[in-house]
Amino acid sequence: MNDSDLIEVVKIGGNVIDDTVALKSFLKDFAKIPGKKVLVHGGGKEATRLSETLGIETMMIEGRRVTDSATIDVVTMVYAGLINKRIVSILQEQGCDAIGLSGADGNILNASRRSPHPIDYGYVGDLTPASLNVSFISSLLDLKKVPVFCAICHDGIGTLLNCNADSVASAVAIGTSKIAPTRLTYCFEKSGVMKDIADEKSVIPVITHTTFNDLKKEGIVSKGMVPKIKNALDAADLGVKEIRICKAEDILGDGGTTVIAE
Amino acid sequence: MNDSDLIEVVKIGGNVIDDTVALKSFLKDFAKIPGKKVLVHGGGKEATRLSETLGIETMMIEGRRVTDSATIDVVTMVYAGLINKRIVSILQEQGCDAIGLSGADGNILNASRRSPHPIDYGYVGDLTPASLNVSFISSLLDLKKVPVFCAICHDGIGTLLNCNADSVASAVAIGTSKIAPTRLTYCFEKSGVMKDIADEKSVIPVITHTTFNDLKKEGIVSKGMVPKIKNALDAADLGVKEIRICKAEDILGDGGTTVIAE
Repeated sequence: MNDSDLIEVVKIGGNVIDDTVALKSFLKDFAKIPGKKVLVHGGGKEATRLSETLGIETMMIEGRRVTDSATIDVVTMVYAGLINKRIVSILQEQGCDAIGLSGADGNILNASRRSPHPIDYGYVGDLTPASLNVSFISSLLDLKKVPVFCAICHDGIGTLLNCNADSVASAVAIGTSKIAPTRLTYCFEKSGVMKDIADEKSVIPVITHTTFNDLKKEGIVSKGMVPKIKNALDAADLGVKEIRICKAEDILGDGGTTVIAE
Repeated sequence: MNDSDLIEVVKIGGNVIDDTVALKSFLKDFAKIPGKKVLVHGGGKEATRLSETLGIETMMIEGRRVTDSATIDVVTMVYAGLINKRIVSILQEQGCDAIGLSGADGNILNASRRSPHPIDYGYVGDLTPASLNVSFISSLLDLKKVPVFCAICHDGIGTLLNCNADSVASAVAIGTSKIAPTRLTYCFEKSGVMKDIADEKSVIPVITHTTFNDLKKEGIVSKGMVPKIKNALDAADLGVKEIRICKAEDILGDGGTTVIAE
Protein backbone atom coordinates (compact mmCIF):
# COMPACT_ATOMS: atom_id res chain seq x y z
CA MET A 1 0.00 0.00 0.00
CA ASN A 2 1.38 3.40 -0.88
CA ASP A 3 -0.90 6.12 0.34
CA SER A 4 0.45 9.35 1.79
CA ASP A 5 -2.74 9.84 3.85
CA LEU A 6 -2.59 6.32 5.26
CA ILE A 7 -2.81 5.96 9.05
CA GLU A 8 -0.77 3.03 10.38
CA VAL A 9 -1.97 1.35 13.59
CA VAL A 10 0.52 -1.18 14.95
CA LYS A 11 0.00 -3.55 17.86
CA ILE A 12 2.90 -5.20 19.68
CA GLY A 13 2.44 -7.96 22.19
CA GLY A 14 4.02 -9.01 25.44
CA ASN A 15 6.73 -11.16 23.85
CA VAL A 16 8.39 -8.06 22.33
CA ILE A 17 7.89 -6.00 25.49
CA ASP A 18 9.57 -8.62 27.68
CA ASP A 19 12.74 -8.56 25.55
CA THR A 20 14.56 -5.21 26.02
CA VAL A 21 16.76 -5.67 22.93
CA ALA A 22 13.85 -6.72 20.68
CA LEU A 23 11.72 -3.84 22.01
CA LYS A 24 14.35 -1.18 21.27
CA SER A 25 14.97 -2.62 17.83
CA PHE A 26 11.22 -2.69 17.08
CA LEU A 27 10.76 0.90 18.30
CA LYS A 28 13.64 2.07 16.06
CA ASP A 29 11.82 0.53 13.09
CA PHE A 30 8.43 1.87 14.19
CA ALA A 31 9.91 5.39 14.44
CA LYS A 32 10.88 5.12 10.75
CA ILE A 33 7.31 4.54 9.51
CA PRO A 34 6.42 7.75 7.68
CA GLY A 35 3.20 9.72 8.18
CA LYS A 36 0.45 9.35 10.77
CA LYS A 37 0.77 6.35 13.06
CA VAL A 38 -0.41 4.86 16.34
CA LEU A 39 1.13 2.20 18.57
CA VAL A 40 -0.85 -0.13 20.85
CA HIS A 41 1.05 -2.28 23.32
CA GLY A 42 0.13 -5.32 25.34
CA GLY A 43 1.29 -6.26 28.77
CA GLY A 44 4.05 -8.76 29.08
CA LYS A 45 5.15 -10.65 32.15
CA GLU A 46 6.04 -7.70 34.36
CA ALA A 47 2.49 -7.39 35.76
CA THR A 48 2.42 -11.10 36.62
CA ARG A 49 5.82 -10.86 38.30
CA LEU A 50 4.78 -7.80 40.30
CA SER A 51 1.51 -9.48 41.36
CA GLU A 52 3.46 -12.52 42.53
CA THR A 53 5.94 -10.40 44.48
CA LEU A 54 3.07 -8.52 46.12
CA GLY A 55 1.36 -11.80 46.99
CA ILE A 56 -1.70 -11.02 44.87
CA GLU A 57 -3.27 -14.28 43.86
CA THR A 58 -4.00 -14.76 40.16
CA MET A 59 -7.58 -15.92 39.79
CA MET A 60 -8.48 -17.68 36.57
CA ILE A 61 -12.00 -18.62 35.46
CA GLU A 62 -12.29 -20.79 32.36
CA GLY A 63 -8.71 -19.96 31.45
CA ARG A 64 -9.20 -16.21 31.70
CA ARG A 65 -7.70 -13.92 34.30
CA VAL A 66 -9.96 -12.14 36.77
CA THR A 67 -9.07 -8.48 37.42
CA ASP A 68 -9.90 -7.76 41.05
CA SER A 69 -9.23 -4.35 42.65
CA ALA A 70 -5.64 -5.21 43.62
CA THR A 71 -4.97 -6.48 40.09
CA ILE A 72 -6.37 -3.41 38.31
CA ASP A 73 -3.96 -1.32 40.44
CA VAL A 74 -1.05 -3.54 39.39
CA VAL A 75 -1.87 -3.48 35.66
CA THR A 76 -2.47 0.29 35.78
CA MET A 77 0.98 0.72 37.35
CA VAL A 78 2.75 -1.62 34.94
CA TYR A 79 0.91 -0.99 31.64
CA ALA A 80 -0.06 2.71 31.94
CA GLY A 81 3.00 3.63 34.01
CA LEU A 82 6.17 1.61 33.56
CA ILE A 83 5.77 0.07 30.09
CA ASN A 84 3.92 2.98 28.46
CA LYS A 85 6.37 5.66 29.66
CA ARG A 86 9.38 3.46 28.88
CA ILE A 87 8.14 3.08 25.27
CA VAL A 88 7.34 6.79 24.97
CA SER A 89 10.78 7.86 26.23
CA ILE A 90 12.55 5.46 23.82
CA LEU A 91 10.45 6.74 20.88
CA GLN A 92 11.22 10.34 21.87
CA GLU A 93 14.92 9.43 21.79
CA GLN A 94 14.34 8.21 18.20
CA GLY A 95 12.83 11.58 17.24
CA CYS A 96 9.30 10.15 17.21
CA ASP A 97 6.97 12.53 19.10
CA ALA A 98 5.06 9.87 21.05
CA ILE A 99 2.33 10.57 23.61
CA GLY A 100 1.31 7.80 26.00
CA LEU A 101 -2.39 7.32 26.61
CA SER A 102 -4.75 5.24 28.65
CA GLY A 103 -8.36 5.31 27.52
CA ALA A 104 -9.15 7.77 30.34
CA ASP A 105 -6.72 10.41 29.01
CA GLY A 106 -8.71 13.00 27.11
CA ASN A 107 -11.53 10.43 27.27
CA ILE A 108 -9.93 8.89 24.19
CA LEU A 109 -11.16 5.32 24.54
CA ASN A 110 -14.37 4.53 26.36
CA ALA A 111 -15.08 0.97 27.50
CA SER A 112 -18.03 -0.71 29.21
CA ARG A 113 -17.47 -2.84 32.25
CA ARG A 114 -18.25 -6.44 31.32
CA SER A 115 -21.46 -7.72 32.89
CA PRO A 116 -20.81 -9.77 36.06
CA HIS A 117 -23.26 -12.42 34.74
CA PRO A 118 -22.72 -15.27 34.13
CA ILE A 119 -19.06 -14.80 35.14
CA ASP A 120 -17.66 -11.81 37.04
CA TYR A 121 -14.25 -11.01 35.57
CA GLY A 122 -13.97 -7.90 37.75
CA TYR A 123 -12.47 -4.69 36.34
CA VAL A 124 -12.52 -5.84 32.72
CA GLY A 125 -13.83 -3.67 29.92
CA ASP A 126 -15.18 -4.27 26.44
CA LEU A 127 -14.89 -1.93 23.50
CA THR A 128 -17.19 -1.21 20.59
CA PRO A 129 -16.59 0.20 17.07
CA ALA A 130 -17.64 3.59 18.55
CA SER A 131 -15.23 3.52 21.53
CA LEU A 132 -12.57 5.82 20.03
CA ASN A 133 -12.78 9.60 20.46
CA VAL A 134 -12.16 10.22 16.75
CA SER A 135 -12.11 14.00 17.05
CA PHE A 136 -9.37 14.00 19.71
CA ILE A 137 -7.10 11.43 18.02
CA SER A 138 -7.50 13.39 14.79
CA SER A 139 -6.30 16.55 16.58
CA LEU A 140 -3.30 14.69 18.04
CA LEU A 141 -2.35 13.25 14.63
CA ASP A 142 -2.68 16.71 13.05
CA LEU A 143 -0.29 18.00 15.75
CA LYS A 144 2.13 15.30 14.49
CA LYS A 145 1.92 13.41 17.76
CA VAL A 146 2.16 9.61 17.78
CA PRO A 147 -0.40 8.15 20.22
CA VAL A 148 0.87 5.15 22.22
CA PHE A 149 -1.97 3.23 23.85
CA CYS A 150 -1.85 0.79 26.70
CA ALA A 151 -4.88 -1.44 27.22
CA ILE A 152 -6.15 0.34 30.35
CA CYS A 153 -9.42 2.11 29.52
CA HIS A 154 -12.14 3.74 31.60
CA ASP A 155 -15.93 3.75 31.71
CA GLY A 156 -16.24 7.55 31.93
CA ILE A 157 -17.71 7.33 35.43
CA GLY A 158 -14.54 6.97 37.44
CA THR A 159 -13.54 3.34 36.92
CA LEU A 160 -10.40 2.10 35.18
CA LEU A 161 -10.85 -1.13 33.25
CA ASN A 162 -8.41 -3.73 31.90
CA CYS A 163 -9.09 -4.35 28.21
CA ASN A 164 -7.66 -6.71 25.62
CA ALA A 165 -4.84 -5.02 23.67
CA ASP A 166 -5.88 -6.68 20.35
CA SER A 167 -9.36 -5.20 20.84
CA VAL A 168 -7.88 -1.77 21.64
CA ALA A 169 -5.89 -1.91 18.38
CA SER A 170 -8.96 -2.91 16.41
CA ALA A 171 -11.21 -0.22 18.02
CA VAL A 172 -8.52 2.41 17.32
CA ALA A 173 -8.15 1.34 13.66
CA ILE A 174 -11.94 1.24 13.13
CA GLY A 175 -12.09 4.78 14.57
CA THR A 176 -9.19 6.21 12.55
CA SER A 177 -10.71 4.72 9.38
CA LYS A 178 -13.28 7.52 9.73
CA ILE A 179 -10.44 10.05 9.28
CA ALA A 180 -8.31 8.36 6.61
CA PRO A 181 -7.60 4.91 5.15
CA THR A 182 -6.06 2.85 7.94
CA ARG A 183 -3.76 -0.16 7.95
CA LEU A 184 -3.75 -2.28 11.11
CA THR A 185 -0.73 -4.51 11.78
CA TYR A 186 -0.67 -7.14 14.51
CA CYS A 187 2.91 -8.05 15.37
CA PHE A 188 3.23 -11.66 16.21
CA GLU A 189 5.92 -14.30 16.97
CA LYS A 190 5.72 -15.84 13.48
CA SER A 191 5.96 -14.49 9.93
CA GLY A 192 2.17 -14.64 9.63
CA VAL A 193 -0.46 -17.34 9.89
CA MET A 194 1.20 -20.53 8.69
CA LYS A 195 -0.22 -23.67 7.11
CA ASP A 196 2.51 -25.71 8.75
CA ILE A 197 3.71 -24.32 12.09
CA ALA A 198 7.15 -25.91 11.50
CA ASP A 199 7.62 -24.27 8.09
CA GLU A 200 8.22 -20.49 8.14
CA LYS A 201 7.72 -20.48 4.38
CA SER A 202 4.15 -21.76 4.60
CA VAL A 203 2.67 -18.33 5.42
CA ILE A 204 -0.91 -17.97 4.19
CA PRO A 205 -0.84 -14.71 2.18
CA VAL A 206 -4.56 -13.84 2.49
CA ILE A 207 -7.36 -14.91 4.83
CA THR A 208 -10.98 -13.97 4.08
CA HIS A 209 -14.23 -14.89 5.88
CA THR A 210 -14.58 -17.89 3.56
CA THR A 211 -11.03 -19.19 3.82
CA PHE A 212 -11.09 -18.55 7.62
CA ASN A 213 -13.99 -21.00 7.97
CA ASP A 214 -12.09 -23.57 5.90
CA LEU A 215 -8.88 -23.07 7.93
CA LYS A 216 -10.85 -23.60 11.15
CA LYS A 217 -12.49 -26.77 9.82
CA GLU A 218 -9.13 -28.14 8.71
CA GLY A 219 -7.68 -27.32 12.16
CA ILE A 220 -4.94 -25.15 10.61
CA VAL A 221 -6.14 -22.17 12.65
CA SER A 222 -6.96 -22.95 16.27
CA LYS A 223 -6.72 -21.73 19.88
CA GLY A 224 -5.49 -18.13 20.35
CA MET A 225 -5.37 -17.46 16.61
CA VAL A 226 -9.15 -17.83 16.22
CA PRO A 227 -10.18 -14.70 18.19
CA LYS A 228 -7.22 -12.77 16.70
CA ILE A 229 -8.34 -13.45 13.12
CA LYS A 230 -12.01 -12.99 14.05
CA ASN A 231 -11.11 -9.56 15.49
CA ALA A 232 -9.23 -8.69 12.30
CA LEU A 233 -12.09 -9.78 10.03
CA ASP A 234 -14.51 -7.66 12.10
CA ALA A 235 -12.19 -4.67 11.66
CA ALA A 236 -12.10 -5.27 7.88
CA ASP A 237 -15.91 -5.38 7.83
CA LEU A 238 -15.99 -2.09 9.73
CA GLY A 239 -13.88 -0.11 7.30
CA VAL A 240 -10.22 -0.82 8.10
CA LYS A 241 -8.54 -0.83 4.69
CA GLU A 242 -5.89 -3.47 5.34
CA ILE A 243 -5.05 -5.78 8.25
CA ARG A 244 -1.73 -7.59 8.44
CA ILE A 245 -0.29 -10.20 10.77
CA CYS A 246 3.53 -10.32 10.73
CA LYS A 247 6.66 -10.46 12.86
CA ALA A 248 7.71 -7.36 14.83
CA GLU A 249 11.02 -7.53 12.92
CA ASP A 250 9.12 -7.29 9.63
CA ILE A 251 7.16 -4.15 10.47
CA LEU A 252 8.81 -2.18 7.68
CA GLY A 253 7.52 -4.76 5.21
CA ASP A 254 10.60 -6.92 4.74
CA GLY A 255 9.18 -10.36 5.43
CA GLY A 256 6.24 -12.69 5.28
CA THR A 257 2.79 -11.36 6.03
CA THR A 258 -0.74 -12.63 6.24
CA VAL A 259 -3.30 -10.09 5.05
CA ILE A 260 -6.83 -10.35 6.44
CA ALA A 261 -9.47 -9.15 3.99
CA GLU A 262 -13.27 -9.02 3.81
CA MET B 1 -8.39 37.88 40.14
CA ASN B 2 -11.13 37.86 37.58
CA ASP B 3 -9.73 37.31 34.13
CA SER B 4 -11.51 35.16 31.57
CA ASP B 5 -8.19 34.41 29.82
CA LEU B 6 -6.52 33.38 33.06
CA ILE B 7 -4.77 29.99 33.15
CA GLU B 8 -4.94 28.31 36.56
CA VAL B 9 -2.09 25.95 37.51
CA VAL B 10 -2.78 24.05 40.73
CA LYS B 11 -0.37 21.79 42.60
CA ILE B 12 -1.55 19.21 45.12
CA GLY B 13 0.78 17.34 47.38
CA GLY B 14 1.04 13.86 48.80
CA ASN B 15 -1.08 14.56 51.88
CA VAL B 16 -4.19 15.06 49.70
CA ILE B 17 -3.34 12.09 47.45
CA ASP B 18 -2.98 9.72 50.41
CA ASP B 19 -6.50 10.53 51.65
CA THR B 20 -9.11 9.10 49.22
CA VAL B 21 -11.97 11.20 50.60
CA ALA B 22 -9.95 14.44 50.59
CA LEU B 23 -8.68 13.69 47.07
CA LYS B 24 -12.18 13.15 45.63
CA SER B 25 -13.47 16.26 47.37
CA PHE B 26 -10.54 18.32 46.05
CA LEU B 27 -10.99 17.00 42.49
CA LYS B 28 -14.71 17.89 42.59
CA ASP B 29 -13.72 21.47 43.47
CA PHE B 30 -10.91 21.55 40.91
CA ALA B 31 -13.35 20.42 38.19
CA LYS B 32 -15.48 23.51 38.99
CA ILE B 33 -12.69 26.02 38.24
CA PRO B 34 -13.80 27.70 35.02
CA GLY B 35 -11.58 28.21 31.96
CA LYS B 36 -8.15 26.87 31.16
CA LYS B 37 -6.46 24.94 33.94
CA VAL B 38 -3.67 22.49 34.72
CA LEU B 39 -3.15 20.13 37.66
CA VAL B 40 0.24 18.98 38.97
CA HIS B 41 0.32 16.21 41.55
CA GLY B 42 2.98 14.99 43.93
CA GLY B 43 3.63 11.47 45.07
CA GLY B 44 2.27 10.43 48.42
CA LYS B 45 3.22 7.41 50.42
CA GLU B 46 2.21 4.72 47.92
CA ALA B 47 5.65 4.68 46.25
CA THR B 48 7.38 4.31 49.60
CA ARG B 49 5.01 1.48 50.59
CA LEU B 50 5.54 -0.31 47.27
CA SER B 51 9.34 0.08 47.55
CA GLU B 52 9.24 -1.40 51.05
CA THR B 53 7.08 -4.34 49.92
CA LEU B 54 9.44 -4.99 47.01
CA GLY B 55 12.43 -4.85 49.37
CA ILE B 56 13.95 -1.84 47.59
CA GLU B 57 16.12 -0.02 50.06
CA THR B 58 15.53 3.73 50.41
CA MET B 59 18.88 5.49 50.16
CA MET B 60 19.06 8.98 51.59
CA ILE B 61 21.98 11.39 51.19
CA GLU B 62 21.88 14.58 53.27
CA GLY B 63 18.16 14.02 53.89
CA ARG B 64 17.31 13.60 50.21
CA ARG B 65 16.17 10.42 48.54
CA VAL B 66 18.37 8.78 45.91
CA THR B 67 16.50 7.49 42.84
CA ASP B 68 18.31 4.35 41.67
CA SER B 69 17.11 2.28 38.69
CA ALA B 70 14.74 0.15 40.81
CA THR B 71 13.29 3.31 42.40
CA ILE B 72 12.69 5.17 39.10
CA ASP B 73 10.68 2.11 37.99
CA VAL B 74 8.61 2.23 41.19
CA VAL B 75 7.89 5.97 40.99
CA THR B 76 7.07 5.70 37.28
CA MET B 77 4.56 2.95 38.10
CA VAL B 78 3.00 4.76 41.04
CA TYR B 79 3.11 8.43 39.93
CA ALA B 80 2.68 8.13 36.12
CA GLY B 81 0.52 4.99 36.32
CA LEU B 82 -1.62 4.47 39.40
CA ILE B 83 -2.01 7.99 40.84
CA ASN B 84 -2.11 9.86 37.52
CA LYS B 85 -4.73 7.60 35.91
CA ARG B 86 -6.79 7.45 39.11
CA ILE B 87 -6.93 11.27 39.18
CA VAL B 88 -7.73 11.47 35.44
CA SER B 89 -10.58 8.95 35.70
CA ILE B 90 -12.11 10.77 38.70
CA LEU B 91 -11.90 14.12 36.85
CA GLN B 92 -13.50 12.56 33.76
CA GLU B 93 -16.34 11.38 36.01
CA GLN B 94 -16.74 15.04 37.08
CA GLY B 95 -17.07 16.14 33.45
CA CYS B 96 -13.54 17.59 33.44
CA ASP B 97 -11.72 16.45 30.27
CA ALA B 98 -8.38 15.62 31.91
CA ILE B 99 -5.36 14.16 30.14
CA GLY B 100 -2.58 12.61 32.21
CA LEU B 101 0.97 13.45 31.23
CA SER B 102 4.52 12.63 32.17
CA GLY B 103 7.15 14.99 30.80
CA ALA B 104 7.98 12.42 28.09
CA ASP B 105 4.44 12.48 26.63
CA GLY B 106 4.47 14.71 23.57
CA ASN B 107 7.89 15.87 24.87
CA ILE B 108 5.93 18.28 27.05
CA LEU B 109 8.43 18.76 29.88
CA ASN B 110 12.11 18.33 29.32
CA ALA B 111 14.44 17.90 32.28
CA SER B 112 18.21 17.56 32.66
CA ARG B 113 19.64 14.77 34.70
CA ARG B 114 21.27 16.27 37.77
CA SER B 115 25.08 16.14 37.69
CA PRO B 116 26.44 13.17 39.68
CA HIS B 117 29.01 15.55 41.28
CA PRO B 118 29.35 16.20 44.15
CA ILE B 119 26.45 13.88 45.05
CA ASP B 120 24.89 11.31 42.69
CA TYR B 121 21.13 11.35 43.31
CA GLY B 122 20.57 8.90 40.43
CA TYR B 123 17.61 9.35 38.10
CA VAL B 124 16.71 12.83 39.32
CA GLY B 125 15.97 15.69 36.94
CA ASP B 126 16.03 19.45 37.16
CA LEU B 127 13.83 21.83 35.22
CA THR B 128 14.43 25.30 33.83
CA PRO B 129 12.09 28.19 32.93
CA ALA B 130 12.29 26.85 29.32
CA SER B 131 11.38 23.21 30.15
CA LEU B 132 7.73 23.40 29.09
CA ASN B 133 6.69 22.70 25.49
CA VAL B 134 4.53 25.84 25.31
CA SER B 135 3.22 25.16 21.84
CA PHE B 136 1.89 21.68 22.75
CA ILE B 137 0.27 22.70 26.04
CA SER B 138 -1.33 25.64 24.24
CA SER B 139 -2.85 23.21 21.69
CA LEU B 140 -4.16 20.95 24.46
CA LEU B 141 -5.73 23.91 26.31
CA ASP B 142 -7.31 25.14 23.06
CA LEU B 143 -8.79 21.64 22.64
CA LYS B 144 -10.36 22.20 26.10
CA LYS B 145 -8.25 19.43 27.62
CA VAL B 146 -7.05 19.72 31.22
CA PRO B 147 -3.42 18.55 31.51
CA VAL B 148 -2.67 16.54 34.66
CA PHE B 149 1.08 16.27 35.29
CA CYS B 150 2.93 13.82 37.47
CA ALA B 151 6.53 14.68 38.36
CA ILE B 152 8.14 12.06 36.09
CA CYS B 153 9.96 13.85 33.28
CA HIS B 154 12.48 12.77 30.64
CA ASP B 155 15.75 14.05 29.21
CA GLY B 156 14.69 13.57 25.56
CA ILE B 157 17.35 10.89 25.04
CA GLY B 158 15.54 7.90 26.48
CA THR B 159 15.81 8.38 30.24
CA LEU B 160 12.93 8.96 32.65
CA LEU B 161 13.76 11.25 35.56
CA ASN B 162 12.15 11.87 38.94
CA CYS B 163 11.55 15.61 39.43
CA ASN B 164 10.23 17.72 42.26
CA ALA B 165 6.47 18.34 41.86
CA ASP B 166 6.72 21.95 43.15
CA SER B 167 9.33 22.61 40.45
CA VAL B 168 7.11 20.98 37.81
CA ALA B 169 4.25 23.29 38.84
CA SER B 170 6.48 26.33 38.69
CA ALA B 171 8.02 25.38 35.28
CA VAL B 172 4.51 24.79 33.89
CA ALA B 173 3.21 28.15 35.20
CA ILE B 174 6.26 30.02 33.89
CA GLY B 175 5.64 28.39 30.50
CA THR B 176 1.89 29.05 30.34
CA SER B 177 2.54 32.70 31.29
CA LYS B 178 3.84 33.04 27.71
CA ILE B 179 0.32 32.15 26.47
CA ALA B 180 -1.88 34.00 28.97
CA PRO B 181 -1.78 35.46 32.50
CA THR B 182 -1.29 32.52 34.85
CA ARG B 183 -2.13 31.98 38.50
CA LEU B 184 -0.17 29.28 40.32
CA THR B 185 -1.68 27.77 43.48
CA TYR B 186 0.25 25.50 45.81
CA CYS B 187 -2.13 23.48 47.96
CA PHE B 188 -0.76 22.97 51.40
CA GLU B 189 -1.78 21.55 54.80
CA LYS B 190 -2.36 25.00 56.32
CA SER B 191 -4.42 28.06 55.33
CA GLY B 192 -1.25 29.73 54.04
CA VAL B 193 2.07 30.74 55.55
CA MET B 194 1.38 31.57 59.19
CA LYS B 195 3.15 33.87 61.65
CA ASP B 196 2.20 31.55 64.47
CA ILE B 197 1.93 27.88 63.49
CA ALA B 198 -0.64 27.34 66.26
CA ASP B 199 -2.92 30.14 65.09
CA GLU B 200 -4.79 29.50 61.81
CA LYS B 201 -5.79 33.17 61.78
CA SER B 202 -2.20 34.40 61.62
CA VAL B 203 -1.90 33.83 57.86
CA ILE B 204 0.54 36.25 56.24
CA PRO B 205 -1.46 37.74 53.35
CA VAL B 206 1.50 38.73 51.13
CA ILE B 207 5.16 37.70 50.94
CA THR B 208 7.61 39.63 48.74
CA HIS B 209 11.40 39.25 48.29
CA THR B 210 11.92 41.82 51.04
CA THR B 211 9.47 40.41 53.57
CA PHE B 212 10.73 36.87 52.79
CA ASN B 213 14.22 37.87 53.93
CA ASP B 214 12.76 39.35 57.11
CA LEU B 215 10.62 36.25 57.77
CA LYS B 216 13.69 34.03 57.37
CA LYS B 217 15.74 36.19 59.73
CA GLU B 218 12.97 36.12 62.35
CA GLY B 219 12.74 32.32 61.98
CA ILE B 220 9.03 32.52 61.06
CA VAL B 221 9.73 30.77 57.76
CA SER B 222 12.07 27.79 58.00
CA LYS B 223 12.78 24.25 56.79
CA GLY B 224 10.58 23.00 53.91
CA MET B 225 8.82 26.35 53.49
CA VAL B 226 12.03 28.12 52.44
CA PRO B 227 12.52 26.34 49.06
CA LYS B 228 8.74 26.44 48.46
CA ILE B 229 8.58 30.24 48.83
CA LYS B 230 11.90 30.68 46.99
CA ASN B 231 10.42 28.66 44.08
CA ALA B 232 7.28 30.82 44.12
CA LEU B 233 9.26 34.09 44.17
CA ASP B 234 11.33 32.84 41.20
CA ALA B 235 8.09 32.09 39.32
CA ALA B 236 6.81 35.61 40.09
CA ASP B 237 10.07 37.07 38.77
CA LEU B 238 9.66 35.01 35.59
CA GLY B 239 6.22 36.29 34.66
CA VAL B 240 3.66 34.27 36.67
CA LYS B 241 0.95 36.82 37.48
CA GLU B 242 -0.09 35.51 40.89
CA ILE B 243 1.14 32.74 43.20
CA ARG B 244 -0.97 31.55 46.11
CA ILE B 245 -0.36 29.13 48.97
CA CYS B 246 -3.57 27.79 50.50
CA LYS B 247 -5.38 24.68 51.72
CA ALA B 248 -6.67 22.16 49.15
CA GLU B 249 -10.15 22.74 50.66
CA ASP B 250 -9.85 26.46 49.86
CA ILE B 251 -9.01 26.07 46.18
CA LEU B 252 -12.19 27.86 45.12
CA GLY B 253 -11.09 30.89 47.12
CA ASP B 254 -13.08 30.39 50.31
CA GLY B 255 -10.36 30.61 52.91
CA GLY B 256 -7.06 32.09 53.99
CA THR B 257 -4.33 32.51 51.42
CA THR B 258 -0.79 33.73 51.25
CA VAL B 259 0.02 35.52 48.00
CA ILE B 260 3.64 35.54 46.85
CA ALA B 261 4.52 38.65 44.87
CA GLU B 262 7.64 40.17 43.33
